[in-house]
Amino acid sequence: MYGWKKKLLRVDLSTGTTLVEEIDENILHQYLGGRGLGTYLVYTEVSPDSDPLGPENILAFCTGSLTGVRVPTGGRSSMSTLSPLTGTIFDANAGSQFGVRLHWAGYDALVITGQASSPVWLDVTAEGAKIHSADHLWGQEIPETVGQLKSKGSAVVSIGPAGENQVLFASIADENGRSYGRGGVGAVMGSKNLKAIVAHGKDKPEIANKDIYEFVTYEAGKMVNASPRTSQGLPEFGTAVLVNLMNWYGVLPTHNFQKGEFAAADKISGERLRDEFLTKRGACWSCPIGCKRNTKTSKESGEGPEYETIYALGSSLGIDDFETIIEANYLCNRLGMDTISCGATIACAMELAQRDLLDTELAFGRVDLLLQTIIDIANRQNIGGELAVGSKRLAEKYQAPEIAMQVKGLEFPAYDPRGMQGQGLLYATSNRGACHLRGNMLGPELLGAPKMLDRHAPSGKAGILIVMQHTNAVIDSIGMCKFVNFAIGDDFFARLMTSITGVKYEVQDLQLAGERIWNLERLYNLRAGFSSLDDTLPPRFLELPLEEGGSAGYVVHLDEMLVEYYRFRGWDSEGVPTERKLSALGLEELGAQFMEERSHA
Amino acid sequence: MYGWKKKLLRVDLSTGTTLVEEIDENILHQYLGGRGLGTYLVYTEVSPDSDPLGPENILAFCTGSLTGVRVPTGGRSSMSTLSPLTGTIFDANAGSQFGVRLHWAGYDALVITGQASSPVWLDVTAEGAKIHSADHLWGQEIPETVGQLKSKGSAVVSIGPAGENQVLFASIADENGRSYGRGGVGAVMGSKNLKAIVAHGKDKPEIANKDIYEFVTYEAGKMVNASPRTSQGLPEFGTAVLVNLMNWYGVLPTHNFQKGEFAAADKISGERLRDEFLTKRGACWSCPIGCKRNTKTSKESGEGPEYETIYALGSSLGIDDFETIIEANYLCNRLGMDTISCGATIACAMELAQRDLLDTELAFGRVDLLLQTIIDIANRQNIGGELAVGSKRLAEKYQAPEIAMQVKGLEFPAYDPRGMQGQGLLYATSNRGACHLRGNMLGPELLGAPKMLDRHAPSGKAGILIVMQHTNAVIDSIGMCKFVNFAIGDDFFARLMTSITGVKYEVQDLQLAGERIWNLERLYNLRAGFSSLDDTLPPRFLELPLEEGGSAGYVVHLDEMLVEYYRFRGWDSEGVPTERKLSALGLEELGAQFMEERSHA
Repeated sequence: MYGWKKKLLRVDLSTGTTLVEEIDENILHQYLGGRGLGTYLVYTEVSPDSDPLGPENILAFCTGSLTGVRVPTGGRSSMSTLSPLTGTIFDANAGSQFGVRLHWAGYDALVITGQASSPVWLDVTAEGAKIHSADHLWGQEIPETVGQLKSKGSAVVSIGPAGENQVLFASIADENGRSYGRGGVGAVMGSKNLKAIVAHGKDKPEIANKDIYEFVTYEAGKMVNASPRTSQGLPEFGTAVLVNLMNWYGVLPTHNFQKGEFAAADKISGERLRDEFLTKRGACWSCPIGCKRNTKTSKESGEGPEYETIYALGSSLGIDDFETIIEANYLCNRLGMDTISCGATIACAMELAQRDLLDTELAFGRVDLLLQTIIDIANRQNIGGELAVGSKRLAEKYQAPEIAMQVKGLEFPAYDPRGMQGQGLLYATSNRGACHLRGNMLGPELLGAPKMLDRHAPSGKAGILIVMQHTNAVIDSIGMCKFVNFAIGDDFFARLMTSITGVKYEVQDLQLAGERIWNLERLYNLRAGFSSLDDTLPPRFLELPLEEGGSAGYVVHLDEMLVEYYRFRGWDSEGVPTERKLSALGLEELGAQFMEERSHA
Repeated sequence: MYGWKKKLLRVDLSTGTTLVEEIDENILHQYLGGRGLGTYLVYTEVSPDSDPLGPENILAFCTGSLTGVRVPTGGRSSMSTLSPLTGTIFDANAGSQFGVRLHWAGYDALVITGQASSPVWLDVTAEGAKIHSADHLWGQEIPETVGQLKSKGSAVVSIGPAGENQVLFASIADENGRSYGRGGVGAVMGSKNLKAIVAHGKDKPEIANKDIYEFVTYEAGKMVNASPRTSQGLPEFGTAVLVNLMNWYGVLPTHNFQKGEFAAADKISGERLRDEFLTKRGACWSCPIGCKRNTKTSKESGEGPEYETIYALGSSLGIDDFETIIEANYLCNRLGMDTISCGATIACAMELAQRDLLDTELAFGRVDLLLQTIIDIANRQNIGGELAVGSKRLAEKYQAPEIAMQVKGLEFPAYDPRGMQGQGLLYATSNRGACHLRGNMLGPELLGAPKMLDRHAPSGKAGILIVMQHTNAVIDSIGMCKFVNFAIGDDFFARLMTSITGVKYEVQDLQLAGERIWNLERLYNLRAGFSSLDDTLPPRFLELPLEEGGSAGYVVHLDEMLVEYYRFRGWDSEGVPTERKLSALGLEELGAQFMEERSHA
């Protein structure tokens, strides 16, 4: 029953061969699917010294056991690769129907290797994959391509011009902007000359124990409908509900994290989004929460923006013209770019200019330049050519690496860690770089979910962060959305997995799988040359307190937390998993490879 | 609006004077009410070197702002004193209607001092208190006394023979066995020659903001009805739902904690309780959960037993005759004794006998002696005379202190800490001794509420335990039940308090109040002569792994956790709050007294 059909569809674009393999049931059990399975595939198939944009890198679309199953938020799937932006192992996660259809086609994973000699698109059905020429699609924006390829019973993801031009933060998305967003996964797809993938699927996964599945799903639905965050906050305002709240706490990044308070926060808030731009609420497949926004400006309509986008293309740039922010979001979606890294890289350029290190018109508040800059980045033209490589490379080029708000090359999301100690630790330790989706401390540090902690205390954060990192790895792997975790917890995930797969899962089994995934990601990054030196934050967070707002006066006490974090993880003082820990996780064999490389180094 | 009428009713039984005082609003704000207010009163009014059974000790019944307010589980109240069992500051908490009526009579606190020269009972109304002779009630069991004193619109609590005889674990209870149960609060009442208290009250507390109160209450109700533990587990099985589960985890204390697994657990389980003995579910005032059991054996009927009682009078004594356990519970309720300490002290005697240290017929499994032993204890006769002082004094007398399963003199509840590292830290650090109600790690370590942690890992436990200790102090102080915390969290407590009192509470305000209460309790105990040496566990938990069951092979790694715990608390390495911490909590003034005593020592 496990993993339904336990099938992996492999496509080599260099040779044009496709192949359906069976996946070892034990691997599915140990890594769950989704992000976990993708991690295992990248770890075992992509050498860490590979060129992320070369044919040897893989794109591994992976579904979870719950992807496409009628459970609350059971519509998510994952995409793993070696990131060209960060050089780390990377997975991006989306609520696109593409994952649902892929799973309904019978696949736990679609693994793409090689490089086509000219643009192609891929047609995936239960029978396998076919490769078609995409010469006529190349150059198109995402909705245009999707519109041409989509038919009844299928879902499509595509790259836009940004992916084609291998912008290092290009995304892969569907027509609604549901994106495998971060880390430049779209550039990897572009490097393979792969424009789009169509998945035709109609066979719903089998359920091992229908009675229990139905009861637990009913219970989970009740919880979602009762919990204020999933039944009121998110449906009513979307993620933009956070703008005013984060601003009040003084952690809304402004002017590239030079401030934590944005005077015009009200103008770009979730409340204003609802009152002036919302046309309809939207939801991913099988999601009762519905945080998506269908919106409209005076010129166009589309989906979004999310809170993270409002920060990246708004407050961080000193821009309070909400209409333009919304249109910039539409534009990024159409061109296929991660709005966070895109905005944060523009913010970096603006601060470089502020400090007279870069000669550009870009400056905080220059809303008039925003849309054209985004177009320039996607096309790698004018100043966009410089920005298309992300903030880290940009700032390094101008000898000011401290101006790039990034960890391991990934740009920051919308929470200044100076007002959230645990969030600082999260950013520093996340395997894919500065990320809020690997154990977001927003819940415990600001919302009180699942438990309120003192946001300014470094003490005691490592312990809770680690279990949250594992839970997030689990959610990414089974195919659900992190927002459902506001209403249901680990016990529900275990009961759902048990009833659907027929394999008995206790909560601790899932936590252990999460820890296994986390450690395997860590091992990969260590093999790729990362070390504890990379578990850090840009200097301003460590040395320079915010001057104003609800978090004024604080810096992140990272060293203190990091010592605890390594120890609690069973890693040595250099952040390397001990043999004992690897053995406890059943990673002896995969770890042996690492240990050997390490002893030669 | 705060604290409604902000009134304290003071009764001096030595002089017969009664007095109504106004409570400083600032004190209510800092200590919330209930346990917090009681802590403040004991701290400021009872010298730690007082005789707990002398006239100088106080009995402080305190209500919270939510006691008697129609919110889910808004029916709890607290009783603070210097405990004769532990010598620590102590508060006991009950879901008795007595607290509701006391609050409706207009009092945040009823403080009783002195000692009557002959038995009395107390009649409390909105107008004040009247003292009546209780000569005719002395010697009666609790239901009999309550029956005689109760009238429409009133609620009564009383002591039984155990309290009269100053059994060191005597309780104060109402006719249903809703008890201010632990720490010998009944002995304190007995020492004052106070048999019973009647509270007449009918004025519901005023609500500061009715609209918000009604909305938040509605939301809270939805959460309780949706959450599986509060809508299914507890209503269906009562707390006895835990018997089989704890046994499966190997933490069900058996034979005085010599084992963690009881072969006959099924025979004393919540499932069997429901199937064979339950007549009706019961609930405390305004409680939608309803974990109370109305039960019936072939001989009699009553309330209970709770899970803790089933362990103490069952598995820990090697007794699997459920009918007798249930009747033993009725008996303890009628005689007025804490079932946990009563059973645990008998278990201690049984182990002393097993090791040939005590000459008694008592032995594990001797169900035939159980009921008579309980009667003997309450009357301090035969072997009961030896047992009436609790396990610590008993074991010390026979030169085997390590056989007493207690911390700071309070007997253990029903979770073997060798299978729950954080629970071990909780027991060691709780200000009232080995207690599960001060931050129970059952949730995070076994149930996954609010978040599942690895129960065998000492790492990372101190941080989460500390915030749970604070939350529990808050719940005890505002007048709610800890079980509601399975469904609603800190944010709800803050919103309810805000809407009801009219004083704006953020979650962090409540956490800070919880921390203030915790530290003031700690200061009191330090003044009473306790030190970090008392933050420990009986040696078997630290040295002797369980041999069988789901937790076999583990001991508690207390030292490691304790270092972290002190540091995270802002205490020095000897467990003494630093001046900086006291200052952050606004405890400079009260702390100064302690600091001065300390410098003289």
